[in-house]
Amino acid sequence: MSTREFVEIREVGPRDGLQNEDTIPVEQRVALIDALSGTGLRAIEAASFVHPKAIPAMAGSDQVMAGIERAEGVRYRALVPNERGAHDALASRVDEIEVVMSISETHNLKNIKMTPDDSVGQVVALTELSHAHGTPVEAILSTAFGCAYEGEVDPARVAHYTRRVFDEAGVDAVSFGDTSGMASPRIVNALLDALETVDVDLSLIGLHFHDTRNLGLANVLVGLERGVRRFDASIGGLGGCPYSPGATGNVSTEDVVHLVEDLGYDTGIDLDTLMTAGHLAEELVGRRLPSAVLRAGPRTRTVPA
Amino acid sequence: MSTREFVEIREVGPRDGLQNEDTIPVEQRVALIDALSGTGLRAIEAASFVHPKAIPAMAGSDQVMAGIERAEGVRYRALVPNERGAHDALASRVDEIEVVMSISETHNLKNIKMTPDDSVGQVVALTELSHAHGTPVEAILSTAFGCAYEGEVDPARVAHYTRRVFDEAGVDAVSFGDTSGMASPRIVNALLDALETVDVDLSLIGLHFHDTRNLGLANVLVGLERGVRRFDASIGGLGGCPYSPGATGNVSTEDVVHLVEDLGYDTGIDLDTLMTAGHLAEELVGRRLPSAVLRAGPRTRTVPA
Repeated sequence: MSTREFVEIREVGPRDGLQNEDTIPVEQRVALIDALSGTGLRAIEAASFVHPKAIPAMAGSDQVMAGIERAEGVRYRALVPNERGAHDALASRVDEIEVVMSISETHNLKNIKMTPDDSVGQVVALTELSHAHGTPVEAILSTAFGCAYEGEVDPARVAHYTRRVFDEAGVDAVSFGDTSGMASPRIVNALLDALETVDVDLSLIGLHFHDTRNLGLANVLVGLERGVRRFDASIGGLGGCPYSPGATGNVSTEDVVHLVEDLGYDTGIDLDTLMTAGHLAEELVGRRLPSAVLRAGPRTRTVPA
Repeated sequence: MSTREFVEIREVGPRDGLQNEDTIPVEQRVALIDALSGTGLRAIEAASFVHPKAIPAMAGSDQVMAGIERAEGVRYRALVPNERGAHDALASRVDEIEVVMSISETHNLKNIKMTPDDSVGQVVALTELSHAHGTPVEAILSTAFGCAYEGEVDPARVAHYTRRVFDEAGVDAVSFGDTSGMASPRIVNALLDALETVDVDLSLIGLHFHDTRNLGLANVLVGLERGVRRFDASIGGLGGCPYSPGATGNVSTEDVVHLVEDLGYDTGIDLDTLMTAGHLAEELVGRRLPSAVLRAGPRTRTVPA
């Protein structure tokens, strides 16, 4: 038993990472998830029960869920956009349901054609449905650190909707998405200040950063310093726009695990095994992924003089 | 006049960034330095007075120094490896002399064929020479956060040599080089703890990070939080090994300025003008550079809905 404090790194590569890629066959998605299941990760975003016309790369999510080998101690999570998706996800026996809404009204209208207030109503309905099946729900609040359309997003507004999804919907957890890569150490601190003001329990929240402006790891560091113990990351850094190599997306799981372990926390994840999964992810998408640690190895790796 | 606290970002691209590239003609190096001189940067590492056989890309450093337009308020700095180099640099009227030694004995022996103790003697001699000409000297202590050959480097050992170059050589400043990209927030804190133990004045030190493992900006953040106010960075992130795109080198000036300004400090640097210089640097080396902000723009950049 480790005496170090546990920090949960959640893998999002098989869903968030792959959803904008050319379609990867179901069996390869299953292989990636199975590889990730053997790394020590305890939560993997495995699927998205959206309409295949909306996100073709996520077609066959039911087959993915049926095909994976469920490892003990790993929660397999899935995103659902609506009631139909929730039913499908529950039928596939996912361990956790994720429901997304955007704090930015412009982004929410553009992305899911609802106002944020309507979205709260949807979170209420989907949580009720999931809980009736004994399945926990996380609300993902996107544009929580800024919106590419609206610019700054008021942390007090994020805190307001956080309280509402906890209080009105009874969600089990909330995570905050850095949708446009606009999070910075200053904004992370401002959001955590705002959440404290409305008495949000930090043990129920997670942070999801992008590395668009090279601040992803600095933002993780600030979150850790402030007491957050749950961070999303994507194997290899999967999830940037593949057609624009400089526009990196999700922070990479390898980089985040490397940082968090170096700081003395226990992630339960074996970095070497994780890097093997990272190389598999590179094979699946057919290109080099942006993870720095996947390339350079951990800082403890020495070379002969 | 800004009421914000000043943080000095020093540009190292024209020397540290270009030294491992295919040779760039003198007039193009001059053009890059002149472009950087107009950004608000106050210190630019412009040249290296090493033997052209050792580092061909730095040949003609005297012509570079003669060719640039010296902007008011900008210090043009140069690295010198020995007395001959110092004489040449002083003849070229550089504003500051840099002398490098490695804390790791293995690295110092391999790199400059001296023990660290011998190197202290050389720092003493070169400082005496430079001061006789009224030119300040900075000692660059490399492998300060770890050595690719030796692994961990004891922060107490770094602190020991820091005191010696201040006390025995009388250098005006010391900077700490993350030679192998092994710095992490934990190690940065440990080094700063060790420096405090031996009463090093933080206003005289600078930190020089690489982004090899995606921790460069997190390390800058830790340095800032601890009171350091001087950081090196390289335009576009110039300075990785060009033949191994994943092995990134210096943190990019655009990314560091973007972070530091967002935290509320004043760098005096105009990010748009800096990004123009970043694009020029990309033209000179003929490839895309790794700076994230150069690609994505600052976080304040919005798009039409």
